[in-house]
Amino acid sequence: MPSQVPIHPVLDGGVTKGQANFNGGTLVCACTDRPVKVAIKGNVAHNHACGCTKCWKPKGAAFSVVAVTPHANVSVLENGDKLQVVDADALILRHACKACGVHMYGPVERDHAFKGLDFIHPERFQEGGWAEPTFAAFVSSIIESGTPPSAMTSVRARLNELGLTPYDCLNPTLMDVIATWVAKKAGTLREA
Amino acid sequence: MPSQVPIHPVLDGGVTKGQANFNGGTLVCACTDRPVKVAIKGNVAHNHACGCTKCWKPKGAAFSVVAVTPHANVSVLENGDKLQVVDADALILRHACKACGVHMYGPVERDHAFKGLDFIHPERFQEGGWAEPTFAAFVSSIIESGTPPSAMTSVRARLNELGLTPYDCLNPTLMDVIATWVAKKAGTLREA
Repeated sequence: MPSQVPIHPVLDGGVTKGQANFNGGTLVCACTDRPVKVAIKGNVAHNHACGCTKCWKPKGAAFSVVAVTPHANVSVLENGDKLQVVDADALILRHACKACGVHMYGPVERDHAFKGLDFIHPERFQEGGWAEPTFAAFVSSIIESGTPPSAMTSVRARLNELGLTPYDCLNPTLMDVIATWVAKKAGTLREA
Repeated sequence: MPSQVPIHPVLDGGVTKGQANFNGGTLVCACTDRPVKVAIKGNVAHNHACGCTKCWKPKGAAFSVVAVTPHANVSVLENGDKLQVVDADALILRHACKACGVHMYGPVERDHAFKGLDFIHPERFQEGGWAEPTFAAFVSSIIESGTPPSAMTSVRARLNELGLTPYDCLNPTLMDVIATWVAKKAGTLREA
């Protein structure tokens, strides 16, 4: 069943499987003049479709495609002078190109389960083969960016059809990681 | 597959279906001396198992059983002098018995999608027949109150087996209600 709402250009036709030997590449912004280029070492992890209102999305898409990589794997190659932080108070310090608006990388520097990870948009790799998205997060949030509530049943059905199990927060693996980190901080973590 | 973690005394043996004609009753705290009694008109809605760290749970249970009812349906019948608000800064103003600790009702008074609803624990009804729980919310949060992360797979399997689909936030229906409310406030709500 096609959704009446476009999910994302790289997902609407079906999810392209990654290649096991993908070993990183170069993210490029949308500028034709002096594009920002960012090198990423190694493959990405936890790639997913994200419906939150803060992640960068291509025009018309209800979801972003976003993954993480250790901060140490990220290095700006060219035209870093065009980058600026979108929201310095956000957990993810999204570095966007001032000219085209594409988010190039977003480190988490605050004390958090995700500290040391950068959020990137693999669709901006000039190379193919990056690990494919495996779930959809913050699905209900697309209502906040203008998807009609009445469309949500078909959106969730389409995500399931694409193999992207829909969650209204993150997936259980990552939610457990966050809860474990919170428990450790609070001194309530118990191992079996 | 039984979970190694007790879910909740009224759920561990299987979920008891509610009766269509249940029309409210009286919530009673755990005190033998001067118990607090609260009358609830009509049936409850959105009953669910909740793993958050703030909801009241019987000793040994990983989850609470919690539902909502319009505030107008709630009235304190006896020994209301024993009630106090657990956390005046929380969204849900949980009114607990000072003596036994049982939460009797929790209104939402703040500007929120749930304003005007009270959260109650149907297991405290002296009558049977209330609408049964139909999902589990904030499942990952039980790690924060001491469930080992390694037990989470069996907890989620057991919840599914009980017919209580596990979510790490609320269920899609309620998450969409919240997102719709947020969108309305922000002026971004769009109808198809």
